[in-house]
Amino acid sequence: MVENKVYNFSAGPAALPGDVELSLQQAMVNYSGTGVSIGSIGHRTALFAEIAEQSEALLRRLLGVSDDYAVLFLHGGASHQFAMVPMNLLRGKKTADYFVTGTWSKKAYKEAQRYCQANIVGDIQHSADGLMSLPKQQDWCLDPQAAYVYYTPNETIHGLEFHRLPEVGEVPLVADATSTLLSRPLDVNRHGLIFAGAQKNLGIAGVTVVIVRRDLLGHELLHTPTLYSYLHHDQERSLSNTGPVVPWYATYLVLQWIEQQGGVDVLAHVNQRKAQKLYDFIDQSDFYLNVVAKADRSWMNIPFLLSDAELESQFLHAADEQGLKFLHGHHSVGGMRASLYNAMPEAGVDALILFMQEFEKR
Amino acid sequence: MVENKVYNFSAGPAALPGDVELSLQQAMVNYSGTGVSIGSIGHRTALFAEIAEQSEALLRRLLGVSDDYAVLFLHGGASHQFAMVPMNLLRGKKTADYFVTGTWSKKAYKEAQRYCQANIVGDIQHSADGLMSLPKQQDWCLDPQAAYVYYTPNETIHGLEFHRLPEVGEVPLVADATSTLLSRPLDVNRHGLIFAGAQKNLGIAGVTVVIVRRDLLGHELLHTPTLYSYLHHDQERSLSNTGPVVPWYATYLVLQWIEQQGGVDVLAHVNQRKAQKLYDFIDQSDFYLNVVAKADRSWMNIPFLLSDAELESQFLHAADEQGLKFLHGHHSVGGMRASLYNAMPEAGVDALILFMQEFEKR
Repeated sequence: MVENKVYNFSAGPAALPGDVELSLQQAMVNYSGTGVSIGSIGHRTALFAEIAEQSEALLRRLLGVSDDYAVLFLHGGASHQFAMVPMNLLRGKKTADYFVTGTWSKKAYKEAQRYCQANIVGDIQHSADGLMSLPKQQDWCLDPQAAYVYYTPNETIHGLEFHRLPEVGEVPLVADATSTLLSRPLDVNRHGLIFAGAQKNLGIAGVTVVIVRRDLLGHELLHTPTLYSYLHHDQERSLSNTGPVVPWYATYLVLQWIEQQGGVDVLAHVNQRKAQKLYDFIDQSDFYLNVVAKADRSWMNIPFLLSDAELESQFLHAADEQGLKFLHGHHSVGGMRASLYNAMPEAGVDALILFMQEFEKR
Repeated sequence: MVENKVYNFSAGPAALPGDVELSLQQAMVNYSGTGVSIGSIGHRTALFAEIAEQSEALLRRLLGVSDDYAVLFLHGGASHQFAMVPMNLLRGKKTADYFVTGTWSKKAYKEAQRYCQANIVGDIQHSADGLMSLPKQQDWCLDPQAAYVYYTPNETIHGLEFHRLPEVGEVPLVADATSTLLSRPLDVNRHGLIFAGAQKNLGIAGVTVVIVRRDLLGHELLHTPTLYSYLHHDQERSLSNTGPVVPWYATYLVLQWIEQQGGVDVLAHVNQRKAQKLYDFIDQSDFYLNVVAKADRSWMNIPFLLSDAELESQFLHAADEQGLKFLHGHHSVGGMRASLYNAMPEAGVDALILFMQEFEKR
């Protein structure tokens, strides 16, 4: 393991494991002894074919993905999926159900409205004491005729996470798992489709992983662009056109690193412990505040406020000087946010808590 | 300048300038003294804002792009543009004109057929002596009612290049300049839209540059995905969602490098000289063969055959052993191909010619 000099708490693009950074660094001038940069390796060479095959095999192994599902590595950020999901999965149906539990699911819901009647199953609930929580099951409005039910297992901005899969019966479940995939086990078989942009737990921005049940494919809306068809990408093994070679390779390295750590069960333990430490510290303090109900708190993104909001910029500045980087909240909500993805070592959380203690004393 | 140990003749992803590789290498663990990898720099930080602003400013300077045009840095490969162009530029019209002069323009033409009546202006012509050429102007079928005229200035697989802009009157000209942008001057003002995937002359795969006349925007087809709208990307300054930070940064470094070389006029001189050397050598030989008419030969991609096709694999193997990498032709046509993009030093061409001479003697 390489010791980080600084701790990067960015919500994404987010910290990479130190070993992955070193491998990327080496590959930038000499990939695997070829004398050629990974940036200039052709996507149809045997060299790249191995990266592509191994990436898929690793992901299937880590999450237990069967051949009933395609595993795709696509260009671009997860936001492309906001349109791709309805364009591919409506399958002649007129409605789709959306949990709107934060900024990202709201964006997906709005995009879906352009293609179908999108229903809100439930949205963020606010308790009398000012806490946010996921909608309670008894309040959900599920449409049994919906083409799919869409949810965002973890919302990075408000810091809410589903700690149990929503029970939606036979309707295919679609997950935007961008900020949670591979941070903990996920029951793929209970999903119709799972997607994740890479820049949180899976590498660097520019590639999106899609896991999709093959029997759902082949019913694209008229006028769906060829590169928006999951079936097309499955048939072309994600190489319809030049793939994003460097981001794809970074994901391959991250998947290897996850396997070396012992897989998602081990990471889930560590991630839960890291998050619990920080929540415990915040809860015992009158100086810091997190406004998410305990049952729905994210393991990945922990937003917090100072009781005296005027000290925020001072806090961020002093943290940055100590090597605790990018702790600002999302520009839409402000405040602070510590993102504790897989690559954040426990020592980073300890360093943050120590700093928060000292800042409070001052 | 850094001396390459090997010469990478790949058609794309293609060779990067040595200095760019070294900068990328450094940035992979410590971007600009931050202690943070470029892969984990947030796309909404001041650090990245500078990269984005400078990239746009450099591109505008190098090609003389006025504010009448948006300059966009988008996710993905150029193939996304095959659908984006008709989805954005039809503007209520029913037809679009396509020059089909190779594999890439054919793909674009086929995708356009899904959105409009796409007409072929002209395609590859074959002379009695077996040479391929671009369609002669007197043979073009232009539709004055077309929404735009689409062409591919350089076709990487067959090795044909337009050395003059097609004269198409008032109809907006659309160029897939993926393999030629910044290898020579290009009169932007005579175009409605120019796009280029980065992995040839502009960096690494995962980002596509689009230069588009702003007055053409805002007429998207119904059901155009939000991320397929040029207007949306212009309004969001290419940061509607997390951008492909590392590929974008690589393009920024390449643009800096091009300016350091003296700009596109200087590069055009060098590129023409490099290509001419190799064509001259091929033409004087009975052993090697290029089948493109002289007037339409590409400066970037030089396909060639051996008079004895049985020696091909031996040629490729021996070349690879000498550090002359990735000289195979595209899998759809076979044979050999030397790609001589900006980053290929003249010494690489000299080394290739020397090797070809020696191989011929054996």
